[in-house]
Amino acid sequence: MHRLKAVLFDVYGTLLDVRSVAAVAEAMFPGDGAALSSLWREKQLQYSWLRTLSDRYADFWQVTGDALDYASEALHLRLSPADRARLMNEYEGLTAFPDAASALQALRRSGLPLAVLSNGTPRMLERTLSNAGLRDRFASILSVDAVRQYKTAPAAYGMAAQQFGAAPAELVLVSSNGWDVAGAASFGLATFWVNRTGAPVERLGVEPTAVGRSLADLPAWLAHRITPRDSD
Amino acid sequence: MHRLKAVLFDVYGTLLDVRSVAAVAEAMFPGDGAALSSLWREKQLQYSWLRTLSDRYADFWQVTGDALDYASEALHLRLSPADRARLMNEYEGLTAFPDAASALQALRRSGLPLAVLSNGTPRMLERTLSNAGLRDRFASILSVDAVRQYKTAPAAYGMAAQQFGAAPAELVLVSSNGWDVAGAASFGLATFWVNRTGAPVERLGVEPTAVGRSLADLPAWLAHRITPRDSD
Repeated sequence: MHRLKAVLFDVYGTLLDVRSVAAVAEAMFPGDGAALSSLWREKQLQYSWLRTLSDRYADFWQVTGDALDYASEALHLRLSPADRARLMNEYEGLTAFPDAASALQALRRSGLPLAVLSNGTPRMLERTLSNAGLRDRFASILSVDAVRQYKTAPAAYGMAAQQFGAAPAELVLVSSNGWDVAGAASFGLATFWVNRTGAPVERLGVEPTAVGRSLADLPAWLAHRITPRDSD
Repeated sequence: MHRLKAVLFDVYGTLLDVRSVAAVAEAMFPGDGAALSSLWREKQLQYSWLRTLSDRYADFWQVTGDALDYASEALHLRLSPADRARLMNEYEGLTAFPDAASALQALRRSGLPLAVLSNGTPRMLERTLSNAGLRDRFASILSVDAVRQYKTAPAAYGMAAQQFGAAPAELVLVSSNGWDVAGAASFGLATFWVNRTGAPVERLGVEPTAVGRSLADLPAWLAHRITPRDSD
């Protein structure tokens, strides 16, 4: 076991609830809100992976807008410029999961630096975390925009190791996205998978270090990890 | 415009109809066949992209089996070893789209070499193309297994350029997968998108060279591309 130097948090789906977009989409397109928000999220991730594979980076704000354009066209929904702007703005006004603030508060006592490691642009992250009341919980906001490669590219996790002068195993990534946990584990980070929905483990050849049902399970696990017997 | 040196075909969804798996899945799990085959395919693609991003290659037979295991667990379907083997075997017994054989026959007259460029393993491709009666239409069967990176990594398209001693623009990729077309176009190949379902263009920053509604539209477009005025 390695001493920990920092705890990294994924944002979308982990700290902030992307499902709040579905309610706005449903009010706009009654009966189609769930399908639109679901396909929007699916294409947003697909595009982040495909652009990284093809070495054709565009930032997460553009990828998010591109995914919305595809999803609305695929579902034959006519998206006016005003509706498009309104849905995009929702991405900067996401609400925090109810367990986020208290878990972050409890972790502050550990003395470990807390950071965000996200696909979002610096501007998106500053705004959305401020709006959700979580911005001041974090010592660093790390955006993959600095390396122009999305998770799960090794560079996206490597930038955190560089930031903290840490070996990969000296960092923990906390994420509710199974694919993110697998990518981080593949790079060598310790991982805590917030499996809110009871999803199966992703079959990608690596396992999470630990699994919890919510962020409320994180402080106890971390306290166990940083006891003196972790001093290698 | 460039003179063409070869025509490359994607296999799954382009020449062969992956939907035939759904019927077998439905007989096995009444009411859940469509959901299972759809999630299976989605995870199969996701895993191919994520493993390439994380530099954690496993061949397409394993990725396909991993995706089936995830999908059946996510849908709470109990998959016996015999049922699993039966569904996997379906992947080697896919039926060709009705327009495939005649289009390939018409292209033979062009004198251009026809090749397959697929994520499938060499063994999967030999078997499934033989079973579908299409194996002898192709001069070459190119599997990304040789470079251990899935589409849309540049290496997956670059291996075809190397095989034919061609510049990227001297090759055409024919695919019904919009993301595959975007990846090939990003690499510099000419592309023909077989858009059977009237899907939107993927928003990935590149456009297909040409679009048809079926493989039947391909021979006329290619004949136009290889007229003498293409001699640069």
